[in-house]
Amino acid sequence: MLKNSRSFRIEWGDCDPAGIVFYPRYFAMFDHSTTMLISAASGLNKYDLLKKYNAAGYPMVDTRAKFAIPTRYGDDVTIESAFTKVGKSSFDIEHRLMKDGKVCLEGFETRVWVARDPADPSKIKSAPIPEDLAARFRGE
Amino acid sequence: MLKNSRSFRIEWGDCDPAGIVFYPRYFAMFDHSTTMLISAASGLNKYDLLKKYNAAGYPMVDTRAKFAIPTRYGDDVTIESAFTKVGKSSFDIEHRLMKDGKVCLEGFETRVWVARDPADPSKIKSAPIPEDLAARFRGE
Amino acid sequence: MLKNSRSFRIEWGDCDPAGIVFYPRYFAMFDHSTTMLISAASGLNKYDLLKKYNAAGYPMVDTRAKFAIPTRYGDDVTIESAFTKVGKSSFDIEHRLMKDGKVCLEGFETRVWVARDPADPSKIKSAPIPEDLAARFRGE
Amino acid sequence: MLKNSRSFRIEWGDCDPAGIVFYPRYFAMFDHSTTMLISAASGLNKYDLLKKYNAAGYPMVDTRAKFAIPTRYGDDVTIESAFTKVGKSSFDIEHRLMKDGKVCLEGFETRVWVARDPADPSKIKSAPIPEDLAARFRGE
Repeated sequence: MLKNSRSFRIEWGDCDPAGIVFYPRYFAMFDHSTTMLISAASGLNKYDLLKKYNAAGYPMVDTRAKFAIPTRYGDDVTIESAFTKVGKSSFDIEHRLMKDGKVCLEGFETRVWVARDPADPSKIKSAPIPEDLAARFRGE
Repeated sequence: MLKNSRSFRIEWGDCDPAGIVFYPRYFAMFDHSTTMLISAASGLNKYDLLKKYNAAGYPMVDTRAKFAIPTRYGDDVTIESAFTKVGKSSFDIEHRLMKDGKVCLEGFETRVWVARDPADPSKIKSAPIPEDLAARFRGE
Repeated sequence: MLKNSRSFRIEWGDCDPAGIVFYPRYFAMFDHSTTMLISAASGLNKYDLLKKYNAAGYPMVDTRAKFAIPTRYGDDVTIESAFTKVGKSSFDIEHRLMKDGKVCLEGFETRVWVARDPADPSKIKSAPIPEDLAARFRGE
Repeated sequence: MLKNSRSFRIEWGDCDPAGIVFYPRYFAMFDHSTTMLISAASGLNKYDLLKKYNAAGYPMVDTRAKFAIPTRYGDDVTIESAFTKVGKSSFDIEHRLMKDGKVCLEGFETRVWVARDPADPSKIKSAPIPEDLAARFRGE
């Protein structure tokens, strides 16, 4: 399965009055990691990817995070992201945010591949993940 | 079990280029609902609550959201929040974000009550939820 | 000139490790106040407004804020917003964020009314503010 | 005067339904650039810096931004930041966000160096910028 990682420094503005990252910000960090993982798989940015495959997006249907160690402004962290399941029209990704070699939190997400409904273009419906893209998600 | 709800309008800045709420923002909305639910239970704001009970906070340990219907800028929505479990030192809350009487997404969270570690005040450790507060969480 | 105001409570997630509002969040608050002021003027939400007038938006070209008193989680504040200038294709709005009757900060913004360029619909260009809308901005 | 620059990619979650960066996010980007510029000057992170100089922070008193060219998800941008004035207890910084060699927007900020009020530690008051730090701000 395809993996990716990126490292960055926790920003002051990501943290709350308790001095730790305001947890909704972790989901924004994970979302960007997913975007970059899919870009790595396809070699395209999100706009070009959706255009190439005539898709409408890959919205979240279920996400979860488990928190073990808080992180703070100035911490240098790494997010490791990997596909864990690639289905017909949905896929799972897991993220681990690491600091000093320890897992601070884990994120889990299930997203669905969607296209415009031919019967009503204002609506979207799930669609099969294009096979060449699915193969790259699987790391083949 | 204690419940609460609040209604508000989705803001332009909460939405992404697909025109729907950027999902990390839902967690920020849920966090504020939890803060207001606990304020309703205690009659205190977060600072006064922590001071009264000599506590350090109630950080998230596990959270999940399931998404059914997207919401957009200008939508008038309601978040209904309720305690679903009150344990010795942790508690669960569920949120439902409603639009036009339909559930758009559900959020689940487990938080832990923490205090300063007497042996090392720079550290926090889980602590029993004060009984009078737990009773109010249970709606008694 | 048209005015508006709205009151709300400062959220935990709007604040930084110093315990005060992370100042970029004030601009998000001001942006929502501007959206609501223009909705009050037109009786339409932003999508319907742009559709009615065949416009592409009213992007910011210049904004400024002056900070006098910090605000914190739990503070109940009011933002008073008013048009201060309505030009041919641009307009100015001022915001004052108040707490306990005192001005905590002031925001100033200049925005421009834009439409799709007929010669190249992928581009936008400034356009005259529709006269009936400009009259409402002026409070006539 | 001391300068710094950093490059990064605009994230999906920084953008609004018009497909361009939601402008309050630019201020968050500038704030992080300022933090990194001051870290570069002092060789310390913000917590250690405030501790070393017994300071309470360097809050914003006045900020402004002028917008010329919008930026979008996927754009690779650079923020160039520089001190433009170092006074007795306040300093000015300017930021330029560049894309493809063009200035997309400029940010201006005036911040004040503050310390705890000896007469009332719950209050802060402006204080002289430590001379060794001011010299580094000036690039000496």
